[in-house]
Amino acid sequence: MALNYTIPGLSEEVSEKVISILQSRLSQEQEASLVLKHAHWNVSGPNFVAVHEMIDPQVDIVLNQADESAERISQLGGSPDGRPDAIVRNRDWAELELTGTQSTEAYIKALVAYYDEFIQNDRNAIAELDELDIVSSNIIQDHVQDLEKFQWFLRAHLA
Amino acid sequence: MALNYTIPGLSEEVSEKVISILQSRLSQEQEASLVLKHAHWNVSGPNFVAVHEMIDPQVDIVLNQADESAERISQLGGSPDGRPDAIVRNRDWAELELTGTQSTEAYIKALVAYYDEFIQNDRNAIAELDELDIVSSNIIQDHVQDLEKFQWFLRAHLA
Amino acid sequence: MALNYTIPGLSEEVSEKVISILQSRLSQEQEASLVLKHAHWNVSGPNFVAVHEMIDPQVDIVLNQADESAERISQLGGSPDGRPDAIVRNRDWAELELTGTQSTEAYIKALVAYYDEFIQNDRNAIAELDELDIVSSNIIQDHVQDLEKFQWFLRAHLA
Amino acid sequence: MALNYTIPGLSEEVSEKVISILQSRLSQEQEASLVLKHAHWNVSGPNFVAVHEMIDPQVDIVLNQADESAERISQLGGSPDGRPDAIVRNRDWAELELTGTQSTEAYIKALVAYYDEFIQNDRNAIAELDELDIVSSNIIQDHVQDLEKFQWFLRAHLA
Amino acid sequence: MALNYTIPGLSEEVSEKVISILQSRLSQEQEASLVLKHAHWNVSGPNFVAVHEMIDPQVDIVLNQADESAERISQLGGSPDGRPDAIVRNRDWAELELTGTQSTEAYIKALVAYYDEFIQNDRNAIAELDELDIVSSNIIQDHVQDLEKFQWFLRAHLA
Amino acid sequence: MALNYTIPGLSEEVSEKVISILQSRLSQEQEASLVLKHAHWNVSGPNFVAVHEMIDPQVDIVLNQADESAERISQLGGSPDGRPDAIVRNRDWAELELTGTQSTEAYIKALVAYYDEFIQNDRNAIAELDELDIVSSNIIQDHVQDLEKFQWFLRAHLA
Amino acid sequence: MALNYTIPGLSEEVSEKVISILQSRLSQEQEASLVLKHAHWNVSGPNFVAVHEMIDPQVDIVLNQADESAERISQLGGSPDGRPDAIVRNRDWAELELTGTQSTEAYIKALVAYYDEFIQNDRNAIAELDELDIVSSNIIQDHVQDLEKFQWFLRAHLA
Amino acid sequence: MALNYTIPGLSEEVSEKVISILQSRLSQEQEASLVLKHAHWNVSGPNFVAVHEMIDPQVDIVLNQADESAERISQLGGSPDGRPDAIVRNRDWAELELTGTQSTEAYIKALVAYYDEFIQNDRNAIAELDELDIVSSNIIQDHVQDLEKFQWFLRAHLA
Amino acid sequence: MALNYTIPGLSEEVSEKVISILQSRLSQEQEASLVLKHAHWNVSGPNFVAVHEMIDPQVDIVLNQADESAERISQLGGSPDGRPDAIVRNRDWAELELTGTQSTEAYIKALVAYYDEFIQNDRNAIAELDELDIVSSNIIQDHVQDLEKFQWFLRAHLA
Amino acid sequence: MALNYTIPGLSEEVSEKVISILQSRLSQEQEASLVLKHAHWNVSGPNFVAVHEMIDPQVDIVLNQADESAERISQLGGSPDGRPDAIVRNRDWAELELTGTQSTEAYIKALVAYYDEFIQNDRNAIAELDELDIVSSNIIQDHVQDLEKFQWFLRAHLA
Amino acid sequence: MALNYTIPGLSEEVSEKVISILQSRLSQEQEASLVLKHAHWNVSGPNFVAVHEMIDPQVDIVLNQADESAERISQLGGSPDGRPDAIVRNRDWAELELTGTQSTEAYIKALVAYYDEFIQNDRNAIAELDELDIVSSNIIQDHVQDLEKFQWFLRAHLA
Amino acid sequence: MALNYTIPGLSEEVSEKVISILQSRLSQEQEASLVLKHAHWNVSGPNFVAVHEMIDPQVDIVLNQADESAERISQLGGSPDGRPDAIVRNRDWAELELTGTQSTEAYIKALVAYYDEFIQNDRNAIAELDELDIVSSNIIQDHVQDLEKFQWFLRAHLA
Repeated sequence: MALNYTIPGLSEEVSEKVISILQSRLSQEQEASLVLKHAHWNVSGPNFVAVHEMIDPQVDIVLNQADESAERISQLGGSPDGRPDAIVRNRDWAELELTGTQSTEAYIKALVAYYDEFIQNDRNAIAELDELDIVSSNIIQDHVQDLEKFQWFLRAHLA
Repeated sequence: MALNYTIPGLSEEVSEKVISILQSRLSQEQEASLVLKHAHWNVSGPNFVAVHEMIDPQVDIVLNQADESAERISQLGGSPDGRPDAIVRNRDWAELELTGTQSTEAYIKALVAYYDEFIQNDRNAIAELDELDIVSSNIIQDHVQDLEKFQWFLRAHLA
Repeated sequence: MALNYTIPGLSEEVSEKVISILQSRLSQEQEASLVLKHAHWNVSGPNFVAVHEMIDPQVDIVLNQADESAERISQLGGSPDGRPDAIVRNRDWAELELTGTQSTEAYIKALVAYYDEFIQNDRNAIAELDELDIVSSNIIQDHVQDLEKFQWFLRAHLA
Repeated sequence: MALNYTIPGLSEEVSEKVISILQSRLSQEQEASLVLKHAHWNVSGPNFVAVHEMIDPQVDIVLNQADESAERISQLGGSPDGRPDAIVRNRDWAELELTGTQSTEAYIKALVAYYDEFIQNDRNAIAELDELDIVSSNIIQDHVQDLEKFQWFLRAHLA
Repeated sequence: MALNYTIPGLSEEVSEKVISILQSRLSQEQEASLVLKHAHWNVSGPNFVAVHEMIDPQVDIVLNQADESAERISQLGGSPDGRPDAIVRNRDWAELELTGTQSTEAYIKALVAYYDEFIQNDRNAIAELDELDIVSSNIIQDHVQDLEKFQWFLRAHLA
Repeated sequence: MALNYTIPGLSEEVSEKVISILQSRLSQEQEASLVLKHAHWNVSGPNFVAVHEMIDPQVDIVLNQADESAERISQLGGSPDGRPDAIVRNRDWAELELTGTQSTEAYIKALVAYYDEFIQNDRNAIAELDELDIVSSNIIQDHVQDLEKFQWFLRAHLA
Repeated sequence: MALNYTIPGLSEEVSEKVISILQSRLSQEQEASLVLKHAHWNVSGPNFVAVHEMIDPQVDIVLNQADESAERISQLGGSPDGRPDAIVRNRDWAELELTGTQSTEAYIKALVAYYDEFIQNDRNAIAELDELDIVSSNIIQDHVQDLEKFQWFLRAHLA
Repeated sequence: MALNYTIPGLSEEVSEKVISILQSRLSQEQEASLVLKHAHWNVSGPNFVAVHEMIDPQVDIVLNQADESAERISQLGGSPDGRPDAIVRNRDWAELELTGTQSTEAYIKALVAYYDEFIQNDRNAIAELDELDIVSSNIIQDHVQDLEKFQWFLRAHLA
Repeated sequence: MALNYTIPGLSEEVSEKVISILQSRLSQEQEASLVLKHAHWNVSGPNFVAVHEMIDPQVDIVLNQADESAERISQLGGSPDGRPDAIVRNRDWAELELTGTQSTEAYIKALVAYYDEFIQNDRNAIAELDELDIVSSNIIQDHVQDLEKFQWFLRAHLA
Repeated sequence: MALNYTIPGLSEEVSEKVISILQSRLSQEQEASLVLKHAHWNVSGPNFVAVHEMIDPQVDIVLNQADESAERISQLGGSPDGRPDAIVRNRDWAELELTGTQSTEAYIKALVAYYDEFIQNDRNAIAELDELDIVSSNIIQDHVQDLEKFQWFLRAHLA
Repeated sequence: MALNYTIPGLSEEVSEKVISILQSRLSQEQEASLVLKHAHWNVSGPNFVAVHEMIDPQVDIVLNQADESAERISQLGGSPDGRPDAIVRNRDWAELELTGTQSTEAYIKALVAYYDEFIQNDRNAIAELDELDIVSSNIIQDHVQDLEKFQWFLRAHLA
Repeated sequence: MALNYTIPGLSEEVSEKVISILQSRLSQEQEASLVLKHAHWNVSGPNFVAVHEMIDPQVDIVLNQADESAERISQLGGSPDGRPDAIVRNRDWAELELTGTQSTEAYIKALVAYYDEFIQNDRNAIAELDELDIVSSNIIQDHVQDLEKFQWFLRAHLA
């Protein structure tokens, strides 16, 4: 990985580590936007409208997160890979396997499980980034705060 | 493929054919949103800002197209698959292979080529849908009109 | 039916047939706006808010459809009849019989049944209008696309 | 008429009288929205645009009045009937008989006459409601204030 | 209670009686804003989103009511007490005792009971104010109209 | 005074009395808009900006009151007189005599005195209108509520 | 007339002359706002709505002109007089004498005549101000441009 | 006519035919925007304001139509000619000959006649484009729908 | 040229001279709107988007200028001619000859040359109008200020 | 305290400590919203309007802070207590004792003192949260930044 | 100073004189934006909020003035110097010497003195520009009008 | 440096160190706003518009940063110096030396170099502030994140 340049105050070695962490987050954020839409289209049952509409703002949030992660990679001198094949290749977490028209409860449970890994991965990334680049860490801290809020929304449906 | 129900006036057999065509369009529309963002993040050179900003409204357009295609599948009684693996599995067109920081010209050329197949596939779908379901055909007719306008934008940069 | 004038390129005989079809659509679109409000006010039960709020945008949609149908009749040189007695007189479809405070499920089932005929009537109208006046056909094609989307919303509650 | 519940401080007997008065107002408010649109579509002559556009805000006003009347019935524990047949059945005032394309003056005169009874009925309802339920009376007081303003608009055209 | 001044046309004695009534309404309106938020944060179950979001606009409404009641006290020459201790001290109605994460149904029932006393107290205040100050009475009449509408929303969930 | 027509349910004699009361209110509301602007332009001193800006929204309020009073006169079949000479001719209250650049305190004191009579006149009008026309009374009740709020704003500066 | 201060670069003598001219314009601009509203409320006949609504934006324009003229006087160190008595006292042009409910044509003719003097007075003011204070002249130049446009609107009704 | 490129799926021969049809529509749409403004500035008489204001939204509509037609030509690989001389050169329909200040009725009649040919030309173009390029046909179908609505507005003034 | 009326303070002879100057400006402003759109559609090359989008706001500006010039002619009692043939007939400046798809640089150069004459003509008009009618001169002064700003935008691309 | 669930990566023990800290912040934020309104209604004196209006945006800020603190507790698996009794029970800081109509200076001094403890408590919470949960710490860091800005506003009045 | 080009109708010699005058105005307008913010941050005392907030809109106004002056220099073919050193180098007026936290009165007095020279310099520039370039003169005339209005605001605090 | 007060929890010694760091950041943020505008006005060449428009949002960002830094100094009890002389006096980084009309590439290179030091200085400030005051550190962390994003925009033009 040859960098185009570095941010003033960050070495090339540090920058490369940060880029690698962010590329993983970018891929999961892009996947989350697809997976959420997948649920948005396939839920059914008595709470259809409420769940259908609850998902869309979260899609906008993770699409925006992907934009921030990718642009941060570019700022660090790297080149983000945003194609669908990169999502599949970088995935070291469990994919969402639920398909077809299903009850709102079934999709909510599947999303809660998906967010368990999503949040854990973001928190691990923060721990590593804190030592490398405070700005990148701040970006992912903001991301995980939104993910944890949405997971609460999902969990509250199941109580 | 077992349908949940059918639209008044459409048989189950016709509905299944329409769903199959729309699932292909959905996958390419989702891929296009990822591929356009990929270019958005990696272009560079003297025309950086203009090209960078020209792409974002088109991302919104193809995301909205995917939403319309997927919701039409649900209206027809089917179940759209919107996960990244579905994009890779359904792809019977050439993927965009360009990666890394590149000149605006290089990415524009790659996108023009990608849109050649994208538009051709939409026009083929319209021809088939005209015989099956006029509402679905109208939806894709609106989609291709926007794609052809954006391809002109891309081409005009190369003249 | 004496026409006030005709659109350039349309004969009087064709115009009268188009007007007759559109008057039927107008009456059902007006009735739908009343019937949807009727349900909006009488639903109750655990999903009250979601269903109550889901209906209002659809009321705006069918009121706007009625406006387009009636104004098209005027453009063709005819005179639309928009009074409540015209709705009752022109009704050759089943009226919605459900009254009183009822569960959300009961009203949704009644509306799905009402929309079965509503959509079928619009699709029949399109088949006839295609031979008579492409602009009027386009108007009803747009109407039925919205009706089919709303019926999906209703059906998804029952899955 | 079996009530679902009563508002704290109102007896069942009083509530039923209030509901009966409000159902009559609801039906006339719904009819007014249809009748105004009927005029909106059929007027013609030199003042076409001004009259055509003056009517639409009034349609929104009476549709909103119907919403308030019907929701008040539900708050009182009753069940409003909003279907077109209820309008025809509850009508103890003169219907608007004018049809077809007519001069703006003809429709304005017909609407002034229609509003004579509409306002008189609202004022009678206020007198009865004052003894029964101050909140319901306030609602109709607001309604008649708007009706009297619109009637002035109509009358000012005829001076 | 020494008044700073009086409104032209109102005696000091009348003003003091009005102020005393309004201070009670102020305290309950402030408490309602806290209690509604308390429910907003603790509901859970399949209808979580719909109930969670239905409460927030009502919070804005009662906060605005408190503002009007308090500012009316100041206009009358009095000094409103808006601190939490005043709420507890002035409370002569039952407090909301439900705590902890609970089903949407449990909180809705508790709020319906709370609103029974809230509405009854407002209606008693109106009866007294009608003899003292028509402007203050109008203010509370507007308040109770909104409370009765929200109670209907709550009740409709339980049918 | 020959009326053009009457509102359904109001006799000509009653209408004339109402019009006479409203014409007086119209003149004072118009004068108030001029007098407030007069103060707006001439205040000075350390609180200049706050007082200068506090007055403008009140000007909009009384201009809107004048519009409502005048249009009510027209609805009743009368003809409002809105010219400056009518203000001077109808004035049976003390005029505002303060002129020239003065301290904010001086203008606030003068306005408090002006509002004493303004409010008293409105309250007298309400007492008379209550017996004649409830809609006109409601209009002035709304007006005086705003006036009393603004007088509190003025008084609070002097405490 | 003792000035509070002068604008840098303007003598006290010049300032006083400018103030005197602007006070006359202020009074007529205030009167115009009253006179236009007077017409707004009293017009009737077939073109009622169009004329009624055409006047309101012009009222806002002359109210804004009055604000600019008065604030300019204050900037010059003078004290504008904005009370109704000042309008009557400063009036050296013909007052608008038309009263009562009249046809739109009658009021338009009266307003055209009123604007003849209004415009002539503004043009005379500009000629004098050009020699005294360019900023004040610019202000009145902008005012007269709007007046001449509105007079065209009035005149076009009479052709 | 040498094309810069073609849309995927359209031959060069077909594209040239489509471009030729669209260039004619472009010229008439541009001329219509000029002709409508010409009427907008020259109408007079009792209905001046209503007609003057009714025209402006239609100007925006035909300007937007010209934009769509011209951009479609560019998308097809052609080069639109948008200069005034192209309008005059391409005109094979009757020009609008009415000039000078005239009554609203005179200009409305002239515009109705102009729109007779305008609509007929668009309908002929649709018939030809249906065989050549469905997207271009859809564009002109949308255009003619707006033209026919505006012609109804014009005609309704004359009834 | 027979005038319909004159503005108070302007003789018929002066008015006719002003109208003649403004008619020339109107024709060039209308032509500029067409010529700018012509360039907007035909530019190509690496700076396509930036130049394409830079032109549209300027089109709105010159369309608005034409509106002001034409309405000023009407205010002066004249009758503007806004048809395409008037543009061609009144043109005593060089037309823009560039056609077909061309580089952004080529169109920018052609527009710079067109604006050289456009600005010079406006400045000549101002010099003449200063002696005749200050309001008309102010209007064209505002116009030329915008033209000179846009010409700088064009020139800055060529440096 | 039995938790409903935990955030991925946070133990139950840590979560309970965080919840306890946040409940204290929630109670003070709720109290602050009441106390600020209390001041908003009771201030008087020459700076009345400026101080009155300066407080309202801060009320919105602390209400929003309470919402964030409470929702964070729910995300952590806890149950926030938002009732007025919880404020009084959790208060381990000095209450605001000032009541009645008082000078702006008196209330500003009382609020400065209240904010001294408020800010100190938030800063202590941040120090503890930094070791437990970075997201919760970030939330309170944002809160205290706004509090310190508002305290400056208060202090600047006293200088 | 070598010009890049000249505006049609302006010689190089005249352009250079205009540029020199505008560069001085640019530097003072930029300095004013800094000096006003300096006061905005350092004022204190009972009128803190009103003065603090009164300054910000004026900062936007002078920043916009600087933009217009600088862009006018570029339009004339010159090159504006907008760096802080240019402000210091071009300053031939007294700098604002007040620093540190001070009473609102102290900063207002200092700003009144600063504006004395600022306005005088602008008026001198207008006198010179009137002979050279009417468009540049118009720009500074608009600027000084806003400055004189703001100085009145400042002065009114001191009366 | 005598402080006016301190934030609860921060000693006077710590506060003074923080203020000193923030004053340096304030001066550079103010200079950046001037330097960016300087480039905005002087760039030229084929990418003129895109670069010209890309700079303005960044000017707003650094102006807002200056506001936050200065207000934080005031909150800490210090007195920010925002005059141009303070910028020059505090500058211990290289000034931007490029002047005159230059290519977009030349100004972009100069700005990239300027931002190298700007970012490095902010990162050094963060390291120091982390030990002194977490709120101030958070403020500058947000600032540098925006600066690094803008530097990427600049760099991407040069690739």
